Amino acid sequence: MNVPSLTEDRDTVAAHIGGLLQELRARKPLVQNITNFVAMDISANALLAVGAAPAMVRAPEESVEFARIIDALVLNTGTLTRDAADAMVTAARAAREQRKPWLIDPVGVGGLSLRSETVLKLLEHGPSLVRGNGSEIIAMARLLGLSEDATVPRGVESVSAAGAAETAAIELARHCKCTVAATGQVDFITDGTRVLRLANGHEIMTRVTALGCSLSSVAGAFLGIAEDPFEAAAGALAIYGVAGDMAFESAQRPASFRTAFLDMLDAITAGDIQQRLKVIP
Amino acid sequence: MNVPSLTEDRDTVAAHIGGLLQELRARKPLVQNITNFVAMDISANALLAVGAAPAMVRAPEESVEFARIIDALVLNTGTLTRDAADAMVTAARAAREQRKPWLIDPVGVGGLSLRSETVLKLLEHGPSLVRGNGSEIIAMARLLGLSEDATVPRGVESVSAAGAAETAAIELARHCKCTVAATGQVDFITDGTRVLRLANGHEIMTRVTALGCSLSSVAGAFLGIAEDPFEAAAGALAIYGVAGDMAFESAQRPASFRTAFLDMLDAITAGDIQQRLKVIP
Amino acid sequence: MNVPSLTEDRDTVAAHIGGLLQELRARKPLVQNITNFVAMDISANALLAVGAAPAMVRAPEESVEFARIIDALVLNTGTLTRDAADAMVTAARAAREQRKPWLIDPVGVGGLSLRSETVLKLLEHGPSLVRGNGSEIIAMARLLGLSEDATVPRGVESVSAAGAAETAAIELARHCKCTVAATGQVDFITDGTRVLRLANGHEIMTRVTALGCSLSSVAGAFLGIAEDPFEAAAGALAIYGVAGDMAFESAQRPASFRTAFLDMLDAITAGDIQQRLKVIP
Repeated sequence: MNVPSLTEDRDTVAAHIGGLLQELRARKPLVQNITNFVAMDISANALLAVGAAPAMVRAPEESVEFARIIDALVLNTGTLTRDAADAMVTAARAAREQRKPWLIDPVGVGGLSLRSETVLKLLEHGPSLVRGNGSEIIAMARLLGLSEDATVPRGVESVSAAGAAETAAIELARHCKCTVAATGQVDFITDGTRVLRLANGHEIMTRVTALGCSLSSVAGAFLGIAEDPFEAAAGALAIYGVAGDMAFESAQRPASFRTAFLDMLDAITAGDIQQRLKVIP
Repeated sequence: MNVPSLTEDRDTVAAHIGGLLQELRARKPLVQNITNFVAMDISANALLAVGAAPAMVRAPEESVEFARIIDALVLNTGTLTRDAADAMVTAARAAREQRKPWLIDPVGVGGLSLRSETVLKLLEHGPSLVRGNGSEIIAMARLLGLSEDATVPRGVESVSAAGAAETAAIELARHCKCTVAATGQVDFITDGTRVLRLANGHEIMTRVTALGCSLSSVAGAFLGIAEDPFEAAAGALAIYGVAGDMAFESAQRPASFRTAFLDMLDAITAGDIQQRLKVIP
Repeated sequence: MNVPSLTEDRDTVAAHIGGLLQELRARKPLVQNITNFVAMDISANALLAVGAAPAMVRAPEESVEFARIIDALVLNTGTLTRDAADAMVTAARAAREQRKPWLIDPVGVGGLSLRSETVLKLLEHGPSLVRGNGSEIIAMARLLGLSEDATVPRGVESVSAAGAAETAAIELARHCKCTVAATGQVDFITDGTRVLRLANGHEIMTRVTALGCSLSSVAGAFLGIAEDPFEAAAGALAIYGVAGDMAFESAQRPASFRTAFLDMLDAITAGDIQQRLKVIP
C-alpha cells in the first residue's frame, strides 16, 4: 500500500502535541462516555487527570439532550448489552446531528455477533476516529469485507502482527473516511493519507484492565479541542505512551503502575513530550 | 435570608463529630447504595474504610426486602437509566415505610430531564438529607420553583457562586423539611433553621471521580447512627474535609491522593477532627 | 461428620499449588466473568495480575458464542438484577454444553429472594465449584434443606461460626457433587470426601470491597487449568492468603493494601507458597 509518511520531523510532531496538551488543559473539554462497566472508573479518572471534564451519561433520552453541550462523545463496546447498544446508536446520531466529534472503541468486535452488529450500525453515523488494538482493527476491516488477512481475536488481546493491522487501518480509514488508530507495541495512526508511528509505552500497560479503554476516552478529550482527528489521535497516544514510560520508572507492578500512570497524566508536560516522544518511520 | 448560625463553638462541634465517628465504628451501620456505575467501587471502599457495612443491592424486589434490615439508604442519580430510576423510587418508598433514613445525591439534576423527573418523584418520599454540589442544589431549588438566581450546571462541575447555593439550600431545606448539604470550597449544611459552614478539604478532591458520590454514601452511614440528619451531614462533611487535608500532606497527584484519602478514612480519629476542623461563621 | 483430612503433608500441598500457579501463567486461561458492578474492576485486575486473561462478556447471546472459547466461567450474584440473573442462567447452560468448568459465588444468597431463586436455578446446570463466605455457604445449604443450624446473613458479612460453615460445605458438596470453598479466618475446601484447611490471609482483606469476588474470579482461572476443582480452589485460596500476608507487610491501611495485594498477585512465586503456606489439620 502506498501511503506517504508524515513529513514533519519528530521535534515538530512533539512540539505540536505539547501545544495540544496545553490547549486541552486550558479548555477542559466535556467528554461523554458510554463505555463498559470495567472502564468507567479508570476512564473518568484518566480524563480528570489529563485535565478534561468527564460525564458518563448513558440513558438514550439524556444523550439527545446532552449532545448539545458536549465537546466529544466516546463509545466503547465492552461488556455490551442490547440496551447499551441501542443507547450508543442514539448517542452517535445525536452527536452527528450536533456536529460533535465522536469515536468508537470496538472492544471484542469480530468475535461476538452483537458487537459486530453494533459497530456496523455505529459506522453509519460517521465517527471521527476509530481506536482499537491491532486485532480489533483487523476484525473491523474484515467485517466490512475490506481485508482478507485477518485473524479472529481471542478475548480482547492483541494477537495480530503489526503489518496486518497497519494495512487494515489504512483500508478502514479510507472506507469510513475517518482516522484510525491501531495500538500495540507500536501505535499506528492513519487518516488514509497520512501515517504516524509512535513507539512509547510499556508492556505492563496491557496488564492493567481498561487502560486502552481509558486511552479512547482521552482521545475523545483531544477530539474535543483539536481541529483534526488525526492530530487528536496522535496527541492521546503520545501522552499515553510517554506517561507510561514515566510511570514505569517508579512502579513495575500492575496496581502501583496504574496509580503512578494516572498521576503521570496529571504531571506530564509539553517538555516531557518533547524530551521523550519516539516517532518511528 | 435570616437564619441563625450554629451557636455552639468550634471545639464543641468538633468534639460532637468525633463522638459520632466513634459511634459509627462501634455500630457499623448497614448502608444500601443505589448509585452510579462510576461510584460503586469508591463508595463501597469509603464505607468500609470509615467503618460501615456497604451493600449495593439495586433490584427493586430486593430493595423492598432489604429495607427491613438496613440502617440507611443512599440514592444517587449519576449514570441514570430508566430501570435505575424506577429502582430508586421503589427503594425510597420502602425505606420510608420502614422508617429508615435516606438521602439523595442529585447528580446532574437540572441539566437532564430524566434526572430532574426522578429527583421530583423521589422527593415525594421524604428524604432525610439532600447532598449535592452548589450547582446541583441551585438546580433543585429552581426545579421546585423556589429560586430564580440559578444557573444551569455544565456536566457535574460546580460553577455557581457560594452565596446562591446557600440561599438555595435554605429554601430547599424548608420546602422539603429535610437537611441540605451543599458542598464546595466551603461546605454548607442547613436544616432550614440551623446552618454550619465547614472549610476543610482541598481542590484536588474534585479531580478524583466520584469522591463526592462516596461522600454521600458516608453521609448515609452517619444517618444510620445519628439522631439528627443535620448532625449526620456535619459528621460526614467534617470527616471528608479533614481526611482530605491529611491525605494531601502525603499525596499531591490525583490517583495517589485517592489511595491516601481512603487510607485516611480508616486512620482518622476524633483527635484529628478536634485538631483540624475548620468551622467558619 | 466423618470426612478424612487431606493425607498429603503441607510441603506436598504447597509444591503442588506452586506448580499450578506456574501452569496458570504459562497457559493464561481465558475467564469469563458475569459479576457484580462493584467487583468488575478488581476482578479483571486480579486476573491480569495473576497471569490470566479476563473477559466480562455479559449479554446472553454473547455468552452462548463465547462459551466455545473460554477456559472457565465465573458467576457472581452481587448487585443482581433480573436481566443479570437471566444472563447467568444462559451462560451456565452454555458452559455446561461446552463442557467448560464454571463456578458460582452466591453473594447475598439466603437474605434476598431473587438471589436465592437464581442460585437454585444455576445449581441445575452443575457448577464445578461454589465459593462463598461461611454465611453464604450456610445459607445455600439451608436453601436446599440440607442444614438446620444456619443463620441468615446480614448484608454480605460473614457472621457464622466456622464449624457450622464446614458442616454446610460438606453437605452442599455432596448434594451438588461439586467442590465447595467456604472462606473466612480459616478457609475450608471440600469435595465431600477430601477436606483442606488453609490459614493464611489477614482481617484487612474484609475491608477492601469485592476482594472475595475477585478471589472467585481467580479461582475461575485455576479451574481453567487444573484437572480437579478441589485443586483449583486450593490453588486460588492459597495464592490469595499468601499474597495477603505478603501485602500486609508493606501496607496496613485498606486502599494501599488493595494496591499492594494486586501487586503481590503479580509478584508471588511458587517459592513464596512453599515458604509461607499454612495448612492446618
